[in-house]
Amino acid sequence: MQRFLKRFSQKAGLPPGSLVHIGDPHTDEVKIKGIRYSETEFEEFAVPDNEALLHLQEMDGIIWLQVEGMHQPEKISALGEIFSLHILTQEDILNTGQRPKMEEFDNYLFLVGKILSFDEETSVVEEKHFCLVLMPHVILSFHEAGANIFATVKNRLQKPNGKIRKKSTDYLAYALFDAMVDNYFLVLEKIGAQIEELEEEILTEPSRESLEWLHFLKRELTVLRKSVWPIRDVINSLIRSDSDLILEDTLKYFMDIYDHTMQIIETLEAFRDVTASLFDIYLSGISNRMNAVMKVLTVIATIFIPLTFIVGIYGMNFSYMPELTWKWGYFVILAIMAILGTGMALYFKRKDWF
Amino acid sequence: MQRFLKRFSQKAGLPPGSLVHIGDPHTDEVKIKGIRYSETEFEEFAVPDNEALLHLQEMDGIIWLQVEGMHQPEKISALGEIFSLHILTQEDILNTGQRPKMEEFDNYLFLVGKILSFDEETSVVEEKHFCLVLMPHVILSFHEAGANIFATVKNRLQKPNGKIRKKSTDYLAYALFDAMVDNYFLVLEKIGAQIEELEEEILTEPSRESLEWLHFLKRELTVLRKSVWPIRDVINSLIRSDSDLILEDTLKYFMDIYDHTMQIIETLEAFRDVTASLFDIYLSGISNRMNAVMKVLTVIATIFIPLTFIVGIYGMNFSYMPELTWKWGYFVILAIMAILGTGMALYFKRKDWF
Amino acid sequence: MQRFLKRFSQKAGLPPGSLVHIGDPHTDEVKIKGIRYSETEFEEFAVPDNEALLHLQEMDGIIWLQVEGMHQPEKISALGEIFSLHILTQEDILNTGQRPKMEEFDNYLFLVGKILSFDEETSVVEEKHFCLVLMPHVILSFHEAGANIFATVKNRLQKPNGKIRKKSTDYLAYALFDAMVDNYFLVLEKIGAQIEELEEEILTEPSRESLEWLHFLKRELTVLRKSVWPIRDVINSLIRSDSDLILEDTLKYFMDIYDHTMQIIETLEAFRDVTASLFDIYLSGISNRMNAVMKVLTVIATIFIPLTFIVGIYGMNFSYMPELTWKWGYFVILAIMAILGTGMALYFKRKDWF
Amino acid sequence: MQRFLKRFSQKAGLPPGSLVHIGDPHTDEVKIKGIRYSETEFEEFAVPDNEALLHLQEMDGIIWLQVEGMHQPEKISALGEIFSLHILTQEDILNTGQRPKMEEFDNYLFLVGKILSFDEETSVVEEKHFCLVLMPHVILSFHEAGANIFATVKNRLQKPNGKIRKKSTDYLAYALFDAMVDNYFLVLEKIGAQIEELEEEILTEPSRESLEWLHFLKRELTVLRKSVWPIRDVINSLIRSDSDLILEDTLKYFMDIYDHTMQIIETLEAFRDVTASLFDIYLSGISNRMNAVMKVLTVIATIFIPLTFIVGIYGMNFSYMPELTWKWGYFVILAIMAILGTGMALYFKRKDWF
Amino acid sequence: MQRFLKRFSQKAGLPPGSLVHIGDPHTDEVKIKGIRYSETEFEEFAVPDNEALLHLQEMDGIIWLQVEGMHQPEKISALGEIFSLHILTQEDILNTGQRPKMEEFDNYLFLVGKILSFDEETSVVEEKHFCLVLMPHVILSFHEAGANIFATVKNRLQKPNGKIRKKSTDYLAYALFDAMVDNYFLVLEKIGAQIEELEEEILTEPSRESLEWLHFLKRELTVLRKSVWPIRDVINSLIRSDSDLILEDTLKYFMDIYDHTMQIIETLEAFRDVTASLFDIYLSGISNRMNAVMKVLTVIATIFIPLTFIVGIYGMNFSYMPELTWKWGYFVILAIMAILGTGMALYFKRKDWF
Repeated sequence: MQRFLKRFSQKAGLPPGSLVHIGDPHTDEVKIKGIRYSETEFEEFAVPDNEALLHLQEMDGIIWLQVEGMHQPEKISALGEIFSLHILTQEDILNTGQRPKMEEFDNYLFLVGKILSFDEETSVVEEKHFCLVLMPHVILSFHEAGANIFATVKNRLQKPNGKIRKKSTDYLAYALFDAMVDNYFLVLEKIGAQIEELEEEILTEPSRESLEWLHFLKRELTVLRKSVWPIRDVINSLIRSDSDLILEDTLKYFMDIYDHTMQIIETLEAFRDVTASLFDIYLSGISNRMNAVMKVLTVIATIFIPLTFIVGIYGMNFSYMPELTWKWGYFVILAIMAILGTGMALYFKRKDWF
Repeated sequence: MQRFLKRFSQKAGLPPGSLVHIGDPHTDEVKIKGIRYSETEFEEFAVPDNEALLHLQEMDGIIWLQVEGMHQPEKISALGEIFSLHILTQEDILNTGQRPKMEEFDNYLFLVGKILSFDEETSVVEEKHFCLVLMPHVILSFHEAGANIFATVKNRLQKPNGKIRKKSTDYLAYALFDAMVDNYFLVLEKIGAQIEELEEEILTEPSRESLEWLHFLKRELTVLRKSVWPIRDVINSLIRSDSDLILEDTLKYFMDIYDHTMQIIETLEAFRDVTASLFDIYLSGISNRMNAVMKVLTVIATIFIPLTFIVGIYGMNFSYMPELTWKWGYFVILAIMAILGTGMALYFKRKDWF
Repeated sequence: MQRFLKRFSQKAGLPPGSLVHIGDPHTDEVKIKGIRYSETEFEEFAVPDNEALLHLQEMDGIIWLQVEGMHQPEKISALGEIFSLHILTQEDILNTGQRPKMEEFDNYLFLVGKILSFDEETSVVEEKHFCLVLMPHVILSFHEAGANIFATVKNRLQKPNGKIRKKSTDYLAYALFDAMVDNYFLVLEKIGAQIEELEEEILTEPSRESLEWLHFLKRELTVLRKSVWPIRDVINSLIRSDSDLILEDTLKYFMDIYDHTMQIIETLEAFRDVTASLFDIYLSGISNRMNAVMKVLTVIATIFIPLTFIVGIYGMNFSYMPELTWKWGYFVILAIMAILGTGMALYFKRKDWF
Repeated sequence: MQRFLKRFSQKAGLPPGSLVHIGDPHTDEVKIKGIRYSETEFEEFAVPDNEALLHLQEMDGIIWLQVEGMHQPEKISALGEIFSLHILTQEDILNTGQRPKMEEFDNYLFLVGKILSFDEETSVVEEKHFCLVLMPHVILSFHEAGANIFATVKNRLQKPNGKIRKKSTDYLAYALFDAMVDNYFLVLEKIGAQIEELEEEILTEPSRESLEWLHFLKRELTVLRKSVWPIRDVINSLIRSDSDLILEDTLKYFMDIYDHTMQIIETLEAFRDVTASLFDIYLSGISNRMNAVMKVLTVIATIFIPLTFIVGIYGMNFSYMPELTWKWGYFVILAIMAILGTGMALYFKRKDWF
Repeated sequence: MQRFLKRFSQKAGLPPGSLVHIGDPHTDEVKIKGIRYSETEFEEFAVPDNEALLHLQEMDGIIWLQVEGMHQPEKISALGEIFSLHILTQEDILNTGQRPKMEEFDNYLFLVGKILSFDEETSVVEEKHFCLVLMPHVILSFHEAGANIFATVKNRLQKPNGKIRKKSTDYLAYALFDAMVDNYFLVLEKIGAQIEELEEEILTEPSRESLEWLHFLKRELTVLRKSVWPIRDVINSLIRSDSDLILEDTLKYFMDIYDHTMQIIETLEAFRDVTASLFDIYLSGISNRMNAVMKVLTVIATIFIPLTFIVGIYGMNFSYMPELTWKWGYFVILAIMAILGTGMALYFKRKDWF
């Protein structure tokens, strides 16, 4: 069940605080992109090496560092040193199997989320790791390669008069989480479309494949559920924490995300209900088809077995069987059998058996 | 599963605070109707354009603005500016998929509900968006076209001595939510009637169609549940909030609505229990019918196969078979077979197999 | 599902505070009986008309007004005026579908309960509305006609030295609720007896009727559950309220009722478990019977089809078939078939197929 | 369902505070045994009549009165008067169907528990009533005859240096409850052994009897659950109460019981899971057997029906059928049929059908 | 169900505080190994007998005593005396069936956990008892033989500059619990791999063995669940306790374990969902196979029974049957039957029956 558990064995036996990447192996370089903005300025800059990071502290405005990929522990550890991240935070960033959570530290807030995508070909929900370190003037975002859904946030930052430019780091954090949760709706919509299609199929012509599809969808709903439920708790504890890093004004926005998470959860539960009902229909469909097969057999057998008995009688070799010598005996018997057979066929017809 | 998720993709990728209508497209104009009343006065007025809204603030008494339709963001945004509605409130008004919630702002209370209707033809629960902005002297109600169940409230306002005329905006809000929740009972009654009809059908002559009907009803119960559960929380947080906008005296009335919501929820759960039990009955009905078919086949086969064997014996061509030459051999055999056949038929009759 | 929802449509569209009777129509007059008692006195009196009610306030001791029937809004409203009952209270009294609840008002406590009865003929739980208004010296009880289970309480009041005579109105309220809850045990016992009978039937000879009976019992358990769960909350909020109307000393008694309610709920849940298990047994019973039918068919077919094949061989008309001309050929074949048939029969016997 | 509800009808209609025994009738005398102990002394004494009880108060040390049987209300009432027990306490002692609870009174703590036993013959859990009244120097224990599991506690009291001798009444109460809960483990072990045996049976050769056994075990687990869950609440409210009667030091011990209760509950839930899974296996076992039966039928029919058709062909009486006159026609046909039959048999063999 | 309940009967009837080993019998000696470390020192020492324990108190630095095996009550009791362990603590150490818990005593914290392992051969989760006594300068760990997963912790202690060397006993406790919980992931991964394998098997070629395997996996998930849920509570109450023994700084680390426990629980629940769905698929697989068998039977019977009837007709011995004397009668009939048979075969082919 790789779908529920990411390579934890990679870490077992290591001391806490061991910085090891847990997740699928990658060969490409971890990329770090920097954005610096204030109400009046917007600037993108590259972070070619760790050295470049040392100058970040001196910059004005708000700095957003986007780290793409978390498979190079040394890079994460360098960032950790510069921004004094707790060793557990560094560990959690490297562990792509870490469940969503919110943790308060003295100098920063640490948020873990999940970016989901749904492959319509294979009906598989893919989960990408996503972390956020929120400091007064700096925000660090970490996400696995291929999970970049934050382009729109960057676009908004580029617009000179965007509200987001006037706000603090907490609003940027909100914008990123909002993008993440909005993306869940897209995943849900795709799954919903598949369930609808499957419903149609199961109601009209269910097959063994329908069942497997149903099973996969149910499993993916379970994966989804496992990702989304903790998100609710993350947002909730963010709202209830009284960290100075979250301004009163931004709370309303986070409450909006909370609301969306609730909606996703409710939709998920509704989907589970529907898939359960679909399995019931599939099951009774099999029984119905078996019923139909049985009826065919029974109709055929019930009509022909008695007739075969009758022809058997006149195939007996008794020396004295008066009917055999009657001139029209043969035709009389044929007629009787025709009447009998038709009668039974009509009877079954009336009973709606075929 | 359009039934559970309204076109969220329309919004994905947009920044928070983007005013976009989320829901089915409409072509007609959003209509705004105004009512102004006090203990002594009652007046209806038209709001032809945004300009007319500017004069509202100067009016005496309580003003109720009914906005029908939420598909024109510019109208909502104009109202938002005049009454200083938070950008998130405006967004929630435009999002017809927004789940029920209650939010307190500095200058107003924001309530989201759902108006439900049940189409008896298609067995589909239709959900219409409904929002309420409650201010000291003004109440704004937003509802999708075709969801106007508030005519009776208006009628009561017209009566010179109605209690509602003497009360504040919170009582009007109560009256509107009460109308909304009362309407749920009607939906429940209709669904209840269909369940009853279906129960009758499944107990007497279940068919494939019964199962599909059952599936649809279960799905609609899920939709209903998804709408009603959050309503309970809305009312509950309204009662527990200590907003100045809700007077002590009105609380009792909201508690009455809470009570009704609980009753609806309990009835929904009872319906779910009953539909689950109905599926069980349907399933065992299929098995019972298969049993009946099998019994017919078995009775026929068990009676005629042995007899056919007997006639087969006397159809053999051995040169020395003494019975064949006996004068009454044929009739003796016929008699034996008649006895055997009747005996077995009686045996099955006694075992209640046909 | 009339069983879960009482004619709510009667009320829909009416303003809150409209005094309308919701429930089955009645033609008889609402009867009001009065009892006045103190430690030393006991007196019954008639309340022929509303006028008589006006003198109640001047009476000494504790007054218990028993109102039988709630289908005449004008009577309830007259009582409401005399005892200053809130309009919502009056509404709740008239609404026989109102769920159990407890509400505190400035001058009184309002309690709603349900009186249940179980018709053993039809296996239907009937629910009667029951309300109590508790004031310092007066207690008003309202119950639907045919639901009078309070005769024993009256008898106790008549006894000169009964403890109940020395206590306040809260103790009388307790006595009435205690009678109501004790009555639930009787209903449970009757249902329990039916479940036991049904269990016996399903374990020995299940039939289609058993299934329907099971379905009805399950449905009635759902009805029961819907009535009893809220009662628990009523008693609980009564205990936790610090109303002056409930004396410290009486609390212990209400806690005793709470305890009984818990016991009823636990028993209900146990019944649900048992009925679920009974359905499982019923279902596997059908499968078992089908198995038995299939075995009969298979045994008969497996014994006779090969034998019929053999006799078919010797019925062929080949000109050269040596066996046919052997003197004892016929008997040898008969013997072979007898051995084969018996052998197979024994084989099936040993496999326990019949 | 006598198993879930004890003769409540015996009490219905009686006023609260009526002292009536509720439970199975008994004819023997209620026995009271007394034990008096202190750190240095231990003495058993008989309590022949109520008079003897009057002298108890004057005794030194701790007094433990063991009342065996609760079917003589007058005896309970006498004790109640001497020790000033609340009328509701007396009622609860007499009601053997009373669910476990803990109640604090001014002068004593009242505890109700259940002593369970499991009859391995009938697979029935028997529940015996058990009450404890805990006062500063006196402890009253009430249990139904045949439920004495407290012999070991008495033995410990007899030992001169036992810790129990140095402790107060609360420790004795703990010791008794501990004995009661320890006894549950024995019941669980016996049921567990039966489930194991049943698992073996259902996995190897399930029968109709397995199903009934399973049903009975499930029912008894329900009974057990109904007894044990409230015990947890009893112990919990005992720990949370700040009664002077429970010393700080003894709390740790009660927490130990709480822990054991949790373990019993978890084991019960695990048993429920396993029995549910066993039913699933039973059900699919039936289907598997039906499959096997069907395969036998199909194999036989598929092999012999076509062969019978072939022999039928050569049994036809056409005047011109060339094959019939061939010298080796008969043997060629026999050979063809042998090949056909063997071929089909091998085919089914390869498909693993028999 | 030995799997859920460990030999409790061994203890039943013993007074609380009786030091008896509860669990599988062992014959080997209980081994005690000592480690003493501080920031600068690390030393292992043997504890050959109880006497050696007396000198422990005088040592500097932090002392970790590893007790392997808990089947010699006298050894535990000796330790208990030296370190003043409460009698209940000693009892819990000896009871290998004790569920996970956390208890605060005046001078120490007592933690109970479970070390799990999964035998891939037998699909059995084995549970080993594990206790920890946490004191300011001493930590006692108790584990059953064969459950030593703490080698890595020891290795870390040996490294001169390890963080663990600079920390207090609470960090060591954390390290041990972390190792325990990390080990759960390994168990989960192995079970997950088996579920995946089983899923493959059930989807492609389910057999009776698949069902048994599924049943065993479900049972083991139940065992696992029973162990892991209480661990969550242990860690939670550890975090919430304000014991001086847990330093502020270490709390973050324990919260990390809490997080892991949550992840394990969520994965367990997901596994339960998947296994439930797999059973559904297995069940419908049986039905599908039965369907296939029925179809074979029906096809064969439907094709050949009518044909056999036809050949039966021309096997009749009527003296006047014109067809029989036609020259090509035989071949005409053969042709007719060939057409009929092929027609029906094609019909079934088109209906996809074989």
